Amino acid sequence: MLTLYYSPGSCAQASHIALEEAGASYDAVRIDFAASQQRSPDYLKINPKGRVPALVTERGILTETASILAFIAQTHPRARLAPLDDPFGFARAQAFNSYLCSTVHVAHAHRVRGARWADNEAAIAELKRKAPQVVQECFELIEREMFVGPWVMGDAYTICDPYLFTVATWWEGDSVDPARLPKLADHRKRVAERPAVKRALAAEGK
Amino acid sequence: MLTLYYSPGSCAQASHIALEEAGASYDAVRIDFAASQQRSPDYLKINPKGRVPALVTERGILTETASILAFIAQTHPRARLAPLDDPFGFARAQAFNSYLCSTVHVAHAHRVRGARWADNEAAIAELKRKAPQVVQECFELIEREMFVGPWVMGDAYTICDPYLFTVATWWEGDSVDPARLPKLADHRKRVAERPAVKRALAAEGK
Repeated sequence: MLTLYYSPGSCAQASHIALEEAGASYDAVRIDFAASQQRSPDYLKINPKGRVPALVTERGILTETASILAFIAQTHPRARLAPLDDPFGFARAQAFNSYLCSTVHVAHAHRVRGARWADNEAAIAELKRKAPQVVQECFELIEREMFVGPWVMGDAYTICDPYLFTVATWWEGDSVDPARLPKLADHRKRVAERPAVKRALAAEGK
Repeated sequence: MLTLYYSPGSCAQASHIALEEAGASYDAVRIDFAASQQRSPDYLKINPKGRVPALVTERGILTETASILAFIAQTHPRARLAPLDDPFGFARAQAFNSYLCSTVHVAHAHRVRGARWADNEAAIAELKRKAPQVVQECFELIEREMFVGPWVMGDAYTICDPYLFTVATWWEGDSVDPARLPKLADHRKRVAERPAVKRALAAEGK
């Protein structure tokens, strides 16, 4: 049995969707960011980073979206959520997800969590101002150079798809122009229609 | 045959070391950041992100350190650089490396590459000012919560070790206080003594 700790609309949604796609047996526990529950002593015992997602497994606790997604794919091979027997294909999927966590999510975070990297208000305001441009450039790079189609990696729906979908649900807040991202806009629509995705979003109250 | 594109002292050093540890057959090609070679049309064909590392393989090109490290481990199983047959252990290693790329490297980048996220000089200066504190907190979290010892994941030297070593070589520039990181300071010393590490650093002119 697995337990996913998440906050609605956060990057944990990618893991939530992947668990549904995999047909995994799991519980989902909501962490209330508005009440700073991610910084509570109880939650810090689960994830000392004070972030979501965290996945409690029988062996221990996993954090970091790219790692949790790979774990779900590897432990639910029948769902075929990654090219498990192909190190190059697997690495390509990991590279895509690594770009999302280390560059795209980070670009987005400068709009909403600038205080991580700056204390003075003028600097935080400048990070917020520039963030939409940086986020737009990230997605244009994905559209132009990385997205294969019809799914991220090509013909097979993989763990890259719910992660891309999740960061793409932040477009409105980040003032991203979807007209310049036709393939990704179409992808976002198609992922939203999947039953597993609808179930995960409904569970998050989205 | 593999070809690694790197810049000396960058995070590509982790992949460079892992190739040496794996006994891989590879070439290493230096990209001159001082001459902005990472933005040259030729290099952008290899990595449209204009970053290092990039690893050219027979199947195609891989980017992102965490992905390249996992690929080296999976394609050189005799080097035992990751728990390849244990999805939980593998995910733990991936989670560690994911934290390095998405949080630690990002914290460091605010000191040297603030222009990625801000245009005005005062804001860039503020990012630079706060970066040492953010970087220090990251390493203290690793020291306290993640590092098992004697190597990152415990008894086995894995792909997490050269990556931690590489970001730890930035301590002096980031004004990190090693006295508060006794386990990591000892780790940095021990990794530096490994023959594979000495070979990779010598090749980079370090």
